[in-house]
Amino acid sequence: MKENKQSKHTVHHESNPANIKRPPVTVIGLGMMGSALAQALLKEGYRTTVWNRSADKAAGLAAQGAVVAGTVAEAVAASPLIIICVLDYGAVNEILEQAGDLLDGRAIVNLTNGTPAQARQMAAWAAEQGIEYLDGGIMAVPQMIASPGALLLYSGSSKIIDTYGPALESFGSTKYLGQDPGLASLHDLALLSAMYGMFSGFFHAVAMIRSEQLQAESFTSLVVPWLQAMSASLPLMAQAVDAGDHQTKVSSLHINQTGFGHFIDACRELGISTELMTPIQELINRGVAEGYGTDGLSRLVELLQKPESV
Amino acid sequence: MKENKQSKHTVHHESNPANIKRPPVTVIGLGMMGSALAQALLKEGYRTTVWNRSADKAAGLAAQGAVVAGTVAEAVAASPLIIICVLDYGAVNEILEQAGDLLDGRAIVNLTNGTPAQARQMAAWAAEQGIEYLDGGIMAVPQMIASPGALLLYSGSSKIIDTYGPALESFGSTKYLGQDPGLASLHDLALLSAMYGMFSGFFHAVAMIRSEQLQAESFTSLVVPWLQAMSASLPLMAQAVDAGDHQTKVSSLHINQTGFGHFIDACRELGISTELMTPIQELINRGVAEGYGTDGLSRLVELLQKPESV
Repeated sequence: MKENKQSKHTVHHESNPANIKRPPVTVIGLGMMGSALAQALLKEGYRTTVWNRSADKAAGLAAQGAVVAGTVAEAVAASPLIIICVLDYGAVNEILEQAGDLLDGRAIVNLTNGTPAQARQMAAWAAEQGIEYLDGGIMAVPQMIASPGALLLYSGSSKIIDTYGPALESFGSTKYLGQDPGLASLHDLALLSAMYGMFSGFFHAVAMIRSEQLQAESFTSLVVPWLQAMSASLPLMAQAVDAGDHQTKVSSLHINQTGFGHFIDACRELGISTELMTPIQELINRGVAEGYGTDGLSRLVELLQKPESV
Repeated sequence: MKENKQSKHTVHHESNPANIKRPPVTVIGLGMMGSALAQALLKEGYRTTVWNRSADKAAGLAAQGAVVAGTVAEAVAASPLIIICVLDYGAVNEILEQAGDLLDGRAIVNLTNGTPAQARQMAAWAAEQGIEYLDGGIMAVPQMIASPGALLLYSGSSKIIDTYGPALESFGSTKYLGQDPGLASLHDLALLSAMYGMFSGFFHAVAMIRSEQLQAESFTSLVVPWLQAMSASLPLMAQAVDAGDHQTKVSSLHINQTGFGHFIDACRELGISTELMTPIQELINRGVAEGYGTDGLSRLVELLQKPESV
């Protein structure tokens, strides 16, 4: 069955040279993200088979040319490359069980959110079955898929990257991080934490500005370039962390501790919550209490690695 | 005495046309920042008088041409423009008491860290005395002073900006925010909170990366452009806050709540502290609990303005 489909597809390719390097692709999971991925493949001319637990989500894609599979087995049999983007690893496991032996010799790209350990466990299982496994993290909202601004991180099978790179590039910019299948998830979550931190600082700042009835939007003309300028200090702090040398002539934990006092006072005067800021203050205080007052802020990374409260 | 000094200086100016617009300036407070400010003025050719509570800090500046005053009164009498950069408002008050009537008719630029309320109180006092008062916030470390990368925010007397703008530009890029003397401090602290938020997210991210023995520095090649890309969403969120309309088709609090689960799980697997991230998770949870699950992240600003815990 699989052989037939592939040879049929090869004929199609021969009649259209632009499609020679476009293998059929299956997308399993048609939430907002999975649907965006399937759409991106269809737009690039890939024969795209889709499956979703609740079939109604496939209707829009069918209208755009997707082949709607009736079962997971049918979806898996349709393509050598299987993209999975579902709610969690529990759902991935259910799908893989339903697919069974049909997965042999195929390539799985798992774009489901999870942890590095989950990705490594899945990759180990796939290796036992002789299945190529690539784990991925999507650094974009569905609306960004198929634009160069969408960043997709991958780790695991480099063979999948070599063979199916162009298909994956339909989704956005591809960054392959290495053979360790946990790397994509690790970097995905690390980037998310950096984003959440930036957003939380911004939300706090805007709460301050709004508490004085000023426009948040005009504040962004100040805060966006400011954050971009401050991001220039991140590589230097990273170097300090790598070297384990947190000496500074610029901004010690002591200086930051003093400054934080004025800052928290001001937040209280303005009547806004300090709940996103006091944890940073407490971490700085802990650094000073542990004898690192003359070190720079980069010391805080090591304090997070030796947690008091996980 | 003051008259004499000024006319003497005018003669000096006439002999050097480049100095015609350079009034004498006094800098009070010679910590790292005050010293950097005095140095910047000296470099630009201003006759600079300095004073510090402990006199030893003035020696280096004297060697660079600064006039070292023996008392606050002497320092204030030396110049029409008085820059104050000391530890806190308590120290500012002591200095102003010592200066007494000598301040009449002079311009004070206060670059001491404090809160908007402190700045407004000081400005009200100055107005009663017939003293022009400009409050400022320095968005730079001392090492950056006199470079265009140093941003100085000012609010209060526009007359001081008009008269002494060029002197102030010795320090870096000047941004005048308006007559309300609290605005510089408010924006200073808001920008700092945005910075601390970005740094805390970065520190958490680097702790994740380092917990797997990866190099923090190579991670910055990913995280710096990522943060810059994500900062593009800040103006849109600011618009949502201004409009009080937090509807989203992109990333609801519900979606973020689900994603945060994976994220915290992964941090625990990696054995690092979640102390900088759980407050964000708790705020998102609160937003969902209060019925805002379908709103975007911008809703969180309003939750901070109605604090549960200040």
